[in-house]
Amino acid sequence: MLTFYDSHGLPNPDRVRIALEEKGVMDQVTVKQVNLWKGEHRTEAFRALNPSVTIPLIVLDDGTAISETTAITEYIDHTFPGIRLTGETARERAIIHMMQRRGEQKIVDAIGAYFHHATPGFGPGIELNQNKAWGEAHLVKTLDGMRYFDRVLQSQPYIAGARFSMADITVYTGLNFSETYPKVVVPRDLTALGDWRARIAERPSSKAAAGETDFT
Amino acid sequence: MLTFYDSHGLPNPDRVRIALEEKGVMDQVTVKQVNLWKGEHRTEAFRALNPSVTIPLIVLDDGTAISETTAITEYIDHTFPGIRLTGETARERAIIHMMQRRGEQKIVDAIGAYFHHATPGFGPGIELNQNKAWGEAHLVKTLDGMRYFDRVLQSQPYIAGARFSMADITVYTGLNFSETYPKVVVPRDLTALGDWRARIAERPSSKAAAGETDFT
Repeated sequence: MLTFYDSHGLPNPDRVRIALEEKGVMDQVTVKQVNLWKGEHRTEAFRALNPSVTIPLIVLDDGTAISETTAITEYIDHTFPGIRLTGETARERAIIHMMQRRGEQKIVDAIGAYFHHATPGFGPGIELNQNKAWGEAHLVKTLDGMRYFDRVLQSQPYIAGARFSMADITVYTGLNFSETYPKVVVPRDLTALGDWRARIAERPSSKAAAGETDFT
Repeated sequence: MLTFYDSHGLPNPDRVRIALEEKGVMDQVTVKQVNLWKGEHRTEAFRALNPSVTIPLIVLDDGTAISETTAITEYIDHTFPGIRLTGETARERAIIHMMQRRGEQKIVDAIGAYFHHATPGFGPGIELNQNKAWGEAHLVKTLDGMRYFDRVLQSQPYIAGARFSMADITVYTGLNFSETYPKVVVPRDLTALGDWRARIAERPSSKAAAGETDFT
């Protein structure tokens, strides 16, 4: 059994959840929901598991704790059979990795910076060092990122090329978070991005991961 | 042949350079130095290769351009024989990946934020949106990161455990940059970190990558 410390509806834990759904292994996972609005990740017990004090986190059978989303999704992809989410060849793996990192920087982390610094974020007890100018610069960066991925999707069906991969999951969860929490909507004129998003939303993994706990 | 767009002495390109040295394949690589102080990465030609406008970048034989350092070093590790820098088993790979990501966040990216935002960085023509408070918060974060890795190294010989890996290369290049450019020195009382650093500096890969071009 794998223990998965989740916080449903946030992009990084949702990346893990959707990867687990794509592999069809949720029955092998114990899920613990952590409410970040209540600071449930700031306890000493959680800090001992993850000194970076971030969600998601997985704990393996032998007690090894793995944080950092890409490390977790790499572990999942190389542990469970089924669909390959991080590529087969060195070239394919590199392209997926690159596009996933761009998805983090241009969407997930950018909208996260806006949310944490230029909106109330998780609230005054949690957001201790807000920097409004930093947050606002990242709203611009997020919108640039949406335009970048729209251009990418004008010439290929998925973020990293011909096949669905972790890069799609990363961008998808970032856009969902953007619209749900800080209410930054994907511009309607980005039709390639919109069409791709509708296709990803139809996958059973996206449907299974959608619409559960709302902590706010 | 691989083409490697390098900027010697900066942590992310140095991660690629040291990985190539560890593999012993520099004779199969064409290196192009890019002077970031002169904005040589801001040309239209470079932006066409890498829309993220970052160094390092590699270009494969078939013209595929790969940016984002971890994507590049994963490619190198899975393409060339010799020492394995990113792990063998899923568990080992996850731990190395996690520790490398912590090395990025707590050292490389943190000292980079201080350098770009709270010091002149690459100079006024390049650093267009400085945020001094953000930079200064990341000096605190960098020093916290140094203390974190010192604690890690008190109980194991390398950043990710018993074996040398990409995680060591990442933290090592970040500390070198910290001392060379923004002149943030590793505190002397962090003896586990200091001893580890002296051992990494003795590796032929570190020696080969040290002390070349200084752009400033």
